[in-house]
Formats: sequence, structure tokens, C-alpha cells
Amino acid sequence: MSIKDVRFGFDFLSNTNIYTCMDTVRKWDLTFACVPISSLKLKSNSVSLDQTCTVLNPTFAEIWCHCIIAKISEHLDVDSSDDDIRLENQKALQQDISWAIFLNVYCIMIELPLEGDFVNLIRLLDNQIDMYQNSAILIQIWMLVPIVNSNIDPWIKWTKFISSVRNISNMKLVLEIGSKLPSNEELDRWLGEPVAAIIIKSSVFLMNKKGYPVLPKLHQEFIKKMFNIGCQIMVSGESGVKQHFNYLCYLYNNTTSLTPYSSEFVSGFEDHLQTPLQPLKNDLPSYVYETFEQDPIKYYKYEKAIFEALNDKSKHVEFIVVYVVGAGRGPLVDATLKAAKDLNIVVKVFAVEKNENALPTLYLKNNERWQNDVTIINCDMRFWNPKQKCDILVSELLGSFGDNELSPECLDGAQNCLKKDGISIPSSYTSFLSPVQSRKLHGEISSIKKNITNCNFQKPYIVQLNNVYTIAQAKPLFTFTHPNLNSKDSSNDRDGVLIFNVSQDCVLHGFAGYFETILYKNIHLSIVPETFSEGMFSWFPAFFPIIEPMVLHKDEELQINFWRCSDKRKVWYEWCVTKPYQGVMHNTNGEMYFMSL
Amino acid sequence: MSIKDVRFGFDFLSNTNIYTCMDTVRKWDLTFACVPISSLKLKSNSVSLDQTCTVLNPTFAEIWCHCIIAKISEHLDVDSSDDDIRLENQKALQQDISWAIFLNVYCIMIELPLEGDFVNLIRLLDNQIDMYQNSAILIQIWMLVPIVNSNIDPWIKWTKFISSVRNISNMKLVLEIGSKLPSNEELDRWLGEPVAAIIIKSSVFLMNKKGYPVLPKLHQEFIKKMFNIGCQIMVSGESGVKQHFNYLCYLYNNTTSLTPYSSEFVSGFEDHLQTPLQPLKNDLPSYVYETFEQDPIKYYKYEKAIFEALNDKSKHVEFIVVYVVGAGRGPLVDATLKAAKDLNIVVKVFAVEKNENALPTLYLKNNERWQNDVTIINCDMRFWNPKQKCDILVSELLGSFGDNELSPECLDGAQNCLKKDGISIPSSYTSFLSPVQSRKLHGEISSIKKNITNCNFQKPYIVQLNNVYTIAQAKPLFTFTHPNLNSKDSSNDRDGVLIFNVSQDCVLHGFAGYFETILYKNIHLSIVPETFSEGMFSWFPAFFPIIEPMVLHKDEELQINFWRCSDKRKVWYEWCVTKPYQGVMHNTNGEMYFMSL
Repeated sequence: MSIKDVRFGFDFLSNTNIYTCMDTVRKWDLTFACVPISSLKLKSNSVSLDQTCTVLNPTFAEIWCHCIIAKISEHLDVDSSDDDIRLENQKALQQDISWAIFLNVYCIMIELPLEGDFVNLIRLLDNQIDMYQNSAILIQIWMLVPIVNSNIDPWIKWTKFISSVRNISNMKLVLEIGSKLPSNEELDRWLGEPVAAIIIKSSVFLMNKKGYPVLPKLHQEFIKKMFNIGCQIMVSGESGVKQHFNYLCYLYNNTTSLTPYSSEFVSGFEDHLQTPLQPLKNDLPSYVYETFEQDPIKYYKYEKAIFEALNDKSKHVEFIVVYVVGAGRGPLVDATLKAAKDLNIVVKVFAVEKNENALPTLYLKNNERWQNDVTIINCDMRFWNPKQKCDILVSELLGSFGDNELSPECLDGAQNCLKKDGISIPSSYTSFLSPVQSRKLHGEISSIKKNITNCNFQKPYIVQLNNVYTIAQAKPLFTFTHPNLNSKDSSNDRDGVLIFNVSQDCVLHGFAGYFETILYKNIHLSIVPETFSEGMFSWFPAFFPIIEPMVLHKDEELQINFWRCSDKRKVWYEWCVTKPYQGVMHNTNGEMYFMSL
Repeated sequence: MSIKDVRFGFDFLSNTNIYTCMDTVRKWDLTFACVPISSLKLKSNSVSLDQTCTVLNPTFAEIWCHCIIAKISEHLDVDSSDDDIRLENQKALQQDISWAIFLNVYCIMIELPLEGDFVNLIRLLDNQIDMYQNSAILIQIWMLVPIVNSNIDPWIKWTKFISSVRNISNMKLVLEIGSKLPSNEELDRWLGEPVAAIIIKSSVFLMNKKGYPVLPKLHQEFIKKMFNIGCQIMVSGESGVKQHFNYLCYLYNNTTSLTPYSSEFVSGFEDHLQTPLQPLKNDLPSYVYETFEQDPIKYYKYEKAIFEALNDKSKHVEFIVVYVVGAGRGPLVDATLKAAKDLNIVVKVFAVEKNENALPTLYLKNNERWQNDVTIINCDMRFWNPKQKCDILVSELLGSFGDNELSPECLDGAQNCLKKDGISIPSSYTSFLSPVQSRKLHGEISSIKKNITNCNFQKPYIVQLNNVYTIAQAKPLFTFTHPNLNSKDSSNDRDGVLIFNVSQDCVLHGFAGYFETILYKNIHLSIVPETFSEGMFSWFPAFFPIIEPMVLHKDEELQINFWRCSDKRKVWYEWCVTKPYQGVMHNTNGEMYFMSL
């Protein structure tokens, strides 16, 4: 599994002595337990109750407080239109929360009211959290949401609730799962929500032939998806059995990643926002070359593409010249020489690299591996002007969004060195966008330092998308073809409009960015989920956020307008959602983010 | 020791093969080594050099790159007035830094030029750091500064240098120590600087009678101080001996804390900025009571003070009534009952506590420990109005700065319950201020999120002061006495002016805040360094920063004006340095920070 180890707990549905509760945790190897807060309450004038001693015993408290989730009574209606009921319940809620904070419990769980209003509940919760803001006391509130309800779609209620909450980083949700599940599509929408835990009612378990408890197939599938976004898991009931957890452990160990990436490469990077590299502006350090050179698929595909191109060229050209531009530490030189050897033909290879720190490795390899047959040139490919032109121009300048490391601009310069009938590898690449819902990513971007004038929302990120619901499949946006035969006239600026169909109510938080490239003829590389090159790890998806999350409804059309712009010194993107309604323009004039030429 | 384990390294003064270097690290159990960058450089056209293979071998590089400090040549004068020299050296410096970044070394060390200018050096370093801002590549630069120089005070040069640096979090200093040391006062000034490491020349070591290397007494003392602020340590020379490090380890193990706090309580809290508690506004959670009740000194002193007060009262009063106000979970009730028992007198004790979550513990103790003799009242002491008045009013409402948890306001209310000739414990308390230099704390405050309109610099912090130079001893500021007999007229607002003598050139970053209290007669508690109550840990110092660091000169007078202000809902401090020159006013009108009534 690529995610951190799951944590298991039991949800006691009725009042339970704290000792019994902790016994269960220990006996079943759990990490936590959930109890009604009434189990932890004491009458102020009670004397010498066993429970009092237990709850307040400081040595014991240090252990149990980290394991206990306190469940606030579901009967507290703080939004009642009856003044007396409202005020009385409001007082009781405040007392319960205050007592839970005093006891320093792991977190506080409250049922999301599915009927009636909850605006006063939101106000009270935010007030409690605000009160302890900037103190050492961290408050976590989990809203309990059933996964189905006969009267109302619980997700609609949840999204309405969380949209008004101010302290979103203190607030997560818990899904309660009974026998009945909604459609797969509705289940997947929870992938874009901050689900802290799921609770499975013990009545959902069935007995298999051997007498062991198991879950229905659809439940298994959904639980595995939830494991993937780091969910904790509880079983609820009056009593439980250890075998339920043995079974859930088994499920966990048989869970595979939702993403097309192998878990060994993505572990620890889930939903981790990174700033895109700019290799044209910043020379890459040694360990970055080292990491990317390990990709087992990318160089294998490149070698195949070069093999085919050499094979084609060798039918007409006697003495083939290959320029590897942006050679780095030489992996594509290796691929070229290997392809030539396999074809049993002689090629003249030039390695062009602007990063002078990479040169010692190239010289070393030339001496030790390449029989000094390679000509090494320390030059920016855009300005190199050799007398001899080449038959094949090989480069690897693509970023997660295809053109975002300025491959179009670099290759437009480099193609001066390519013969009129020469081949560029890659021969083309296309960027893709797909709309996504991810409350987690949006929350994390808003919490990055210095989010002045929303600048953090007006730049792309590189991120291993995990806690994300894909609203619609990716569609192609911009394509660049090389050689770009009309490059003097034809600019690399682009504009594009994509329309997506919204299949169910959801919330748009931004767009995932991907690319596909044709290296040569039928040899592709892709990080688009539907066509992903299995085993490749060189590129994580890009993510273009939007400032204001946008509520979308079933059957609406979502339209995004996207621009690639440039001036003499830089290239940048601008984007704006234009349907179902007009959003704000992002990164106007590249003011918040640009790639330096 | 209270600080994290020190790290040891060797500084190779001349070119050293990287294998030899790593051998030494392994052989002597070091964590790092410092080598001239020329040891890591390769001529671009060199072929098959042993060194080339070593430096670039990826498997080996993963190990050594985290251990190596690359020392840039001291001969690069990038501020020369000769255009040719300047530009040539500038290019060489940029190449060296770029190569060090490519190799991903642990950090880059550069000699601080003591003669001539360095403004272009600052510009070049900041540019290099900026270039990798927002990338995954973290650049650390250490400036090498000799601790003495015959022509110039190195600290003056350093402070001039660091004042112009923009990326201060990427820039630390290394002190080079030869046989000669400056005065103790000058040595102490380095305690307020971000000293990453010290380098001891191997020639400084002497031989003791048994033939083992030792350091002179003054060197020992200074090195122990540097251990206290988390310094790493290097020995420099053409070659070294393992025994030098054995000796330094021995010194380290015999280092005691610079602060008056016992290391077991402060470990991990050094220079960690915390927001002051506001127990009047936010009810304390259980574990906070639990922690503070462990203080071995505070309650012992309180018990002694209550004993003396009871003893005095018992001479005139037959039936003594004690009100413990803000009783929390009851430690002062325990102290009162114990003192009464020791005196063999009967007292009537009331415990008044507003935090209703603390009541169950009080009831429990009343039943189990106090024979139900204590009357427990759930009430804010300011508004309690009992018929009977008490002889002794006991409270513990003091914060690190004395009055900052609003003890004056609470006790002014509570004294309505005190007989005219009644005793308040504490009977008075006084806040203290002392000016300090701490580049580290100032840097950390500026890096806290949301430093809009410098709000982070206009509030107090609670912090275990560590990487700090105390410019002058603390002086008393405000005093509050209880009972406050004229409280209806006499406000708790205060203003004060303190003047400190500056004994050497230094930089002011803010003021440490302390307090002393007289509990009763000659029984004191104090966190002022000079009168600290040994063994007490309940209070760390306060820290009041200033927005703009202020350069101070020897023999100047430093004057700070300080106000305590209030309105109906809140209390706040304002402060302004007025000599040697007028600074800006901090926290005008309590806009950035206040304590809620």
C-alpha cells in the first residue's frame, strides 16, 4: 500500500465504561474507540464514582485521551425554531464540547443534521475552534454522515455544511455505512472529500461458508478506495468481534493503488503540492538527474523510437547524424548508441547541454562507455549554430503538462540544426485537462504562506493526486508538433476551450493537467489516466486550482477557457471557467506565475 | 544536556581526496567534513580521473553529499574596484556555488571578507538563493568569521553583512577559534547570533600531563556556551587526531544549561515561540492543570506562605476562613489544609472556580481527601458575593510577565470577599524587562504566517530563551499590590520608563519579560534570572519583540517606554523604544494583541 498504515477503531453505540472501552482497544489491537460523551460525563456533585476516578485519573488519562473519540448526542437541535429548545440545546452542546476539550480527547464527533437547518451549529463549532486559535490546544471535529438516506442526498447536505465552515482544517467527515450503498458514481464523489474515517455497521457483515465474517463485494470495493485516501476505519455496534478487524486487515493488505503509478514511487507524495521545475531557468542538480534516469519505461520507449527513426533514415542516408539536445548526463545518448548497435549501423552523435555542471559526467561516460565517439557541446540549444545539420534531433524537455518546461521554445531554436527532412523525437505532444473536486487540495493551497491576492490559487502545482474525485475524463487541449515548419510565423501561443459534461452534483476545485506525446510514429508516452504508460514515474500530474470553488449540478455543461501566452522573456498560462457561469480570470498577464525564457 | 545532540566534523584546510575525507569521517565517527571546493572540482575535459568517478558516482554521492561542506576559495574578491578582477571573480564564485548546488552538498561555506566591501557578495548570494526559491532545492550558506582580528571587530563586520541579507533563513555563521579569545562580554554577544558551528584550530589544543589533548579554560567555557545554543563543532588543520573529538565529546557531556531551568523540563522548547495562555478567556484543559501541578517549588513556597499567614492570623482570629480563588483542580486547597494541619488549627476553606470542567475533580478530592470540609463554588471570582468575608485570599493567577493573565483585575473583584484586615497571597508582584539580541527569534517571528502590517512583532510570546544575548540585566517595571485598598479609584493601568546602559556594540531585537512575586512577607517566587527560584518550571520568560532591529553602540543609553492600558473589555500593552533614537510604537490601542476581560 502506498498510504500510511490504516488505523482501526470500534464505535460503541451505547454508554460504555471507559475501562471496558480501553480493554476492548487493547484486546483487539485497535488504535482508538468512539463513545457517547455521556460515558465520559460526571455529575458535578457525584462523589467517589468509579467512573469519575477513571476519567480523571491523570496517569490513565494520558493513555486514553489519545484513543477516545467523544460522540456528542444526536438529540441536540441547536437550530430549532423553538427559542427555549434552541437555547437549551445550544448550552448543552457548548458544555459537551467544552468538557471534551477539557479531557483532551482525540477528536469530537457530531452527527450532521440531515433535516432542518444547521447554520447555528456551524456558528457554534467555528466559535469553539476560534476560541482556541493560536493556543496550543488543537481541536478536531468529525461530522458523521450516513452514506445513504431515503429522503435526501447526504453529500448535498455535507457540501452545504462545509461551504459555510471557516475553520476547514479542523473539520473532517466520517461516513457511516450500512447494508445499502448508493451508485458507484455517488460513491466516487466522496473521493474528493476530506473523509477521516468510515464506520461500518457490524450488521453489514455476512458469514462465509467457513463461518468467518465477510463484507459484500460492493462494500469491499468502496472500502478499498477509502483506504487509498488514508481513511481510518471503525466498526459500530453494541458489541463487536475481533474477526471483523482481522477481515478488514486482510482487505487492507489486498488493496491496490487507485492511481496508475506504482506505489513504490509515489509513497509519501500523495496530495503533496510541489512547484514545477524550471530546468531552462534553474540548472538541475545531480540527484534530480539521478532520479529521473531510473525510469524503467521512458528510456525504453525512447530507445524504441530512436531505433525506428534510425531504421527509417538508414534506408536513404549513409551516415546518420543525431543531435541529443538537452543531453543532461547522457541517458538519451546511451539509448541512441544502443539502438544503432542493435541495427548494426554507425551514427555520429552530438550531445548538447547548457548545464555546465552536467559536463563532467558526459566526458566521463564518453571516455568509459562511448569510446570517445560522442561530440560534447556546452551550449543552449536555442543558440547553437553548427555547420553540419542532423538527421535526427532527440530531446526530453517535457513537463507534466507537456509544454510547461518550454519544450516548444527550445525545439523551435534547436530545429535550425535539423535537416529539412529530419526527424524530431518527440514528434508531437498534447496537453490534457480534466476537472476535479478535491476539498483537501483546495484547503492546502489556501493555507500556504503568503496567499496575498490569492496568488497561491493562480499558479500550477505538480501533485500526486489522491484525495480527488475526477468530475469528467481528461480532454486534449494544446498540441505542439516538431519540427515546427512554419515556426517563424506560427507562434507557440495557444488558446483553447474545453466542455465537460457534469454527470452528478459536485464541486469544482480545479483542473488536473496531463500530457501525451508521440515520440515517433506509433510510439507513445502518456500520463493521461486512460492511456497511462504503465510503470513510468517521471511525471506526476499538474494541478491548476481555481480561487472560488464552483458548485456544479447534474447535466450542466462545464466550460474552461485556457490560454498559453508569451512575451520576449516569459511564457505563462491564464484560465477562466466560463460555464455554467463565469468565474474570475486566473493569472492575468502572468502576474502570479510564469516560466522564464 | 537540554539541546539536541551535537554534531562533529573535521575541516580539511587543503585539497583532500573525497575518499580520504569520507574515510576520516567514518574512522573518527564524525557526522561531516569540510573541504575546499577545489577538492570537488573536475576539469571539464578531464578523463577517467579517479576523483571524477568518486565525486559523480551516484551510489557514493548519496552518502557523501549529506556530509560535505564545500568551502569556497577565500581569494574570490567579488567587490574589487578593478572591473576585470571583480567580474572574473564574480563568474568564478557563481560557478563554484552552482557546482556545489549541483552536487547537493550539505552546505556552502564562504569566508566573510573583513577588509573592503561585501555588498556585491551579498547581492550574488541572495540572487543564488532566490533562484532556487520555491523549488525543492534548499540552499544553506555559512559565513566563516574569525572570533578575533587585530584590525577590526569581526562582529561589527558580521552584523553589517547580515543586516543587508534578505534570505536570512538560508544564512548562518561559523566562528573560527584560534588561541586568542576576545573579552567575555564580546564572546557572550555571539549567543544572540545564528552560529551554526564553531571551528577550533587544532593548534589550540594543549597536551595535559597524561599526554592527552585539552583546551585552555576560557576556550572550554566558551565552547560549552556554544553547545548550549545548538552549535555543531569542527576541528581544523592539515590533519587531526581522534583524541581531539574524544575530548570535545567529554566537554559536551559535562556541559550544563545556561538557563536557570532544569534541562529535563525545557528540552525541546528552546527558542520555541508560544502564544501566552489566557485562562480567563479560555478554560484550561485537564492536561495543562496536570502539568503545572507537578511544579516542585511553586506549591512548596505557597504552602510556606499560607503557613505563615495562618500562623499570624491565628493569633487574633479564632476561626480562620480561607478563600482559594481560581482553585483549578485544587492544589492550593491541598496546600492550605496541609499548612493548617501542621499548625494544628481548624480553617474553613472555600474553593472558587469558574471552569466548570474542573469541578468534578474538586468534588472527588473533597470526598476522598478533604473529608468534604471544603465548600466548592462554581463562579467567576470577580462577581462572587458571599455573605461571609475571608481572612486569607489565596490565588495563582500570574503569568510570565506577572500581570499578563489579568491577576490585577481578577483580584480587584475578589477582594470584595476579603475582610478589611485580610491577607492576599500573593501580596504583590512586579514585572521585569531586559533588552536582548536574538537574530534567531527575530527571524522566526518574521517567518510566522500572516505577518501582515507586522502584526507578529506587536504581540508578546512565551519562549524558553536560548539563542539570545542579554544586553543588560532585567529591571523592574510595574508592581501590583493586593489587597488594592484604593481599587475603586486606582486603576491597574500603568506606564513606565526603563533606561539600560549598553556595554558594547550590539543589536536590539526585543525585550525579555519576567516577574517576581512576594507571596507573603519574605516568601518569594521569581523567574528573573538573577533571583530565579531554583527548580521551578511553571513559567518560561515572555518576549516582546520590536519590528525593526536597532543597532546600539557602546556607552549609549537605551530607553524603553511601556504602557499597560485597558478598556471595559480588554487589557493590552504598548511599547516604544525612545533612546538612543525614537522607534515605532508597538500595538497601538491593542489592535494587534490584547487580553480579554
